[in-house]
Amino acid sequence: MTQATTLATDRETPVHPFVAAHRETLDRARRAIAERSYWSAYPESPSPKVYGETAAAEGAQAFQALLGKDFPLDQPGTTGWVATESSPYGVPLNVRYPHPDVDALITAAQAAIPAWRDAGPQTRVGVCAEILHRIHKNVFELANAVQFTTGQAFVMAFQAGGAHALDRALEALAYAEAEMSRTPASADWAKPAGKGEPLRMNKTFHIVPRGVALVVGCNTFPTWNSYPGLFASLATGNSVIVKPHPRAVLPLAITVRIAREVLAEAGFDPNLITLAAEEPGEGLARVLATRPEVRIIDFTGSSEFGNWLEQNAHQAEVYTEKAGVNTVIVDSTDDFAGMCRNLAFSLTLYSGQMCTTPQNILVPANGIETDQGHKSFDEVAAGIASAVDDLVSDPKRGVEITGAIVNDGVLERLERARGAGRVVRDSQALSHPAHENAVIRTPLILQTTADDEATFGSEWFGPISFVVATGSTEDSLALFRRTVGAKGALTASVYSTDDRVLDVAEQAALEVGVHLSCNLTGGVFVNQSAAFSDFHASGANPAANACLTDSAYVASRFRVVQSRRHN
Amino acid sequence: MTQATTLATDRETPVHPFVAAHRETLDRARRAIAERSYWSAYPESPSPKVYGETAAAEGAQAFQALLGKDFPLDQPGTTGWVATESSPYGVPLNVRYPHPDVDALITAAQAAIPAWRDAGPQTRVGVCAEILHRIHKNVFELANAVQFTTGQAFVMAFQAGGAHALDRALEALAYAEAEMSRTPASADWAKPAGKGEPLRMNKTFHIVPRGVALVVGCNTFPTWNSYPGLFASLATGNSVIVKPHPRAVLPLAITVRIAREVLAEAGFDPNLITLAAEEPGEGLARVLATRPEVRIIDFTGSSEFGNWLEQNAHQAEVYTEKAGVNTVIVDSTDDFAGMCRNLAFSLTLYSGQMCTTPQNILVPANGIETDQGHKSFDEVAAGIASAVDDLVSDPKRGVEITGAIVNDGVLERLERARGAGRVVRDSQALSHPAHENAVIRTPLILQTTADDEATFGSEWFGPISFVVATGSTEDSLALFRRTVGAKGALTASVYSTDDRVLDVAEQAALEVGVHLSCNLTGGVFVNQSAAFSDFHASGANPAANACLTDSAYVASRFRVVQSRRHN
Repeated sequence: MTQATTLATDRETPVHPFVAAHRETLDRARRAIAERSYWSAYPESPSPKVYGETAAAEGAQAFQALLGKDFPLDQPGTTGWVATESSPYGVPLNVRYPHPDVDALITAAQAAIPAWRDAGPQTRVGVCAEILHRIHKNVFELANAVQFTTGQAFVMAFQAGGAHALDRALEALAYAEAEMSRTPASADWAKPAGKGEPLRMNKTFHIVPRGVALVVGCNTFPTWNSYPGLFASLATGNSVIVKPHPRAVLPLAITVRIAREVLAEAGFDPNLITLAAEEPGEGLARVLATRPEVRIIDFTGSSEFGNWLEQNAHQAEVYTEKAGVNTVIVDSTDDFAGMCRNLAFSLTLYSGQMCTTPQNILVPANGIETDQGHKSFDEVAAGIASAVDDLVSDPKRGVEITGAIVNDGVLERLERARGAGRVVRDSQALSHPAHENAVIRTPLILQTTADDEATFGSEWFGPISFVVATGSTEDSLALFRRTVGAKGALTASVYSTDDRVLDVAEQAALEVGVHLSCNLTGGVFVNQSAAFSDFHASGANPAANACLTDSAYVASRFRVVQSRRHN
Repeated sequence: MTQATTLATDRETPVHPFVAAHRETLDRARRAIAERSYWSAYPESPSPKVYGETAAAEGAQAFQALLGKDFPLDQPGTTGWVATESSPYGVPLNVRYPHPDVDALITAAQAAIPAWRDAGPQTRVGVCAEILHRIHKNVFELANAVQFTTGQAFVMAFQAGGAHALDRALEALAYAEAEMSRTPASADWAKPAGKGEPLRMNKTFHIVPRGVALVVGCNTFPTWNSYPGLFASLATGNSVIVKPHPRAVLPLAITVRIAREVLAEAGFDPNLITLAAEEPGEGLARVLATRPEVRIIDFTGSSEFGNWLEQNAHQAEVYTEKAGVNTVIVDSTDDFAGMCRNLAFSLTLYSGQMCTTPQNILVPANGIETDQGHKSFDEVAAGIASAVDDLVSDPKRGVEITGAIVNDGVLERLERARGAGRVVRDSQALSHPAHENAVIRTPLILQTTADDEATFGSEWFGPISFVVATGSTEDSLALFRRTVGAKGALTASVYSTDDRVLDVAEQAALEVGVHLSCNLTGGVFVNQSAAFSDFHASGANPAANACLTDSAYVASRFRVVQSRRHN
């Protein structure tokens, strides 16, 4: 018990020791979101030098120990058990999760709120920081769960699914704490009243949560995409029901398990967070999303369901990340090889199954100027294709970039895509040295022309991209505005040696509301965003109605209710 | 031109001289929203000592000069002129306003955005502050317009419709500036890369507006309720279309006229703000609200249309203030006379035509303890009624509190209400010494019991209140939770000498999400909220989905779009 907790005055709830334990980290995170320069709290390298010699093996073991069993989650209203995952690596999982009675889950979630609300912002943020700390202690177990449910390669699962997801969660906590501190806890108000005594009142401002929050997880990034909303809602006093994708339950089940342990340890009702697993096709998200008690919804997934939520869950604040048409504008470059390598990596990483993977690469039909002289349109397409070949020619190395195909939908789309343009580079299967049943495919690159917008103008999720011949860079920019304006995008990039082109592209990006990366030829990739610095999604185009993570993402998850008394 | 404007670097747009002119005021306002203690920028007393000997007469003259004419508003797309106002004071107005072609208005509103966006947050906030300054210079003209369209008495029109509305607008500007500064304009990012050179990028963060904002004004408080949203949207880079209530156009027409003048003077397109006047029943708000270009909507008015907006204007951020059931819980008091006087004033002020006027006064059937000994239920009801009599017994003084009845709907409701309970105090007509055709009514107070919830459980907008006999204070609290939970409320108050009762009431208020005032017996009234200190509405109950004015009210009116380049 630190002194701070014992010195609390009568009207304040004492703050929890977890606050002191994480104060320094939270303060640093607060500074990071104000500066948005480089910072990270959780090392992204899974190296034994960082995490110790035994961490990787212990994490793998902890993961293995969960397979084929009932997942240990003691939550109310369990009506049965469901096992719905099927690993893209062909590894049998068979973890059984509690299937909830919706009424019981919601009742428990509501009952848990008042004490959590009354504990106050500091304590809530401290307890949430402790949850992140405990998840981080189990990050190898989590990374294995992410890898084997999503098909990500291990290092990516460790980074995006572990360390970076935790960074994004901490970022959300920093925004939550900052937003909850905009209004003072109390104020003395004295209004001059002519010659008489001033009118005086003491005002108390309470942070009150919205109610029950629903987090709907996705198949490909169950933790990274869910953590910001989950922790923003929890820290602002709401209880959270986590509805994972039936194919990627385990990473969120582990998260819920750890969170419940920490909440109980801190003296709160563990039902502040529960898991709502379902059978595929059951439609549990739809049922939960329209319950009057559910006041916040975070969703990542299809535009179809995201739009449905925006249009039907009127009782809730709805935050969606949906599909988009990510676009690259190629005008010219002073590093042709670097450009091709960089784009190839972006196309290949996790087999293009990122919401941020570029899909349309717009290149003038008459080619571009480069450090290697003029390159024709075909040479640009071939350059990118050949750089992809370089990445995947050695399957052992290749599979560590591609990962595996997350589900049959992607395979079917890949098959269909072969007829959608001239094949510049065909997709091929790779075999995984350690997992013979893994389903792995390299990028398919198609070539087409600007007039085939009906085809490339919508999202083709997976390892599918189009090199599109346009009349000129000006035409590319117009096409960019049109497709992103209509369908949205999570990322955009431009290559040009001409500052005016970069400026015009930046202006176009502002107008269609998409984040822009310029001339990426080295170790930064358009499909990666850094927590505490880059914003993910903008909420300014049809691909998402919110940004992970900024003030607006958090400010509406709670309300301020005041009480005033004469003093 | 100040030095600051000439020292701007290449990448910055030079800031406007208006910024320097209002920097001190804006900084003070920023401090006020962080402290929420007493502050005001615009003197609320219309006294000649404050505003000068000629200000009142000049303002009245300026108002008179507008009557019976085409209102001077040179905006695009005018298809004809409409005159729709009818003064509650029986004064002929006949001001004709431009009726717009919707397409032309929206096209002009969109075209105005890019230069305004690119001017940057500082300049926008400075220009908006200058607009407030100019409105303040014309505050007597505005007050007359508010008085004669809404039926408010002059002093109230001057305060609520003038000075306080300007304070709320400035508060919105302070929040807008604060929120737009959460993210730095740029950041240098350097990620360590093992033994190699760090990865470096320069990131630029642009504030981009949502698009066209729609403000739908109400009949009773055309400026006070519209200004926060209007200025929050404008300052964050959006253009604004103002759709006034057909019966209260003039205050907003004056506002739009002044804003257009200042915008043009500052070098911006005046079409950043336009007026959309309509014939009664034309349904222009519905048309505008569902246009894809309209991305923000602020509305004050009926629950019916507010709910319709929330459920149908999916393309927009929708902020609504609707109807509610404001409640007073009377448990005990150490100042019976003060309590009765205070409540009586709240019931009488503007004939109860405030969204914040108490409607239901819950009193235990077996009476309450007071400084004057035990008072029976009937004595409490009679005490309040008698205090109302005191306020209105002298019509000359009375009409300066009651103002006039805003429209026939209120009169009809008042007639209907007479059958809704036992009449404790009947409403009577007052004649106005200066306006013989003014329609003036004093408060109707009815007595009923808790089991008539079907009647008093919904809003009766106007000078209608119910003293409700409950089984006990505990029952009152349960009734309070139930009615406010179901129908919402903008205000609540409690009278008790028992701290435990106050605490339980505060807890109940938190749970149903309504602001609570305790033991008001002096010069602070439950239906008045002070800008920069009190929040108006909470957004936490069905009466409103937002609060005027806090961070959340502003944070989603713009987005951040980033651009990153290697440096």
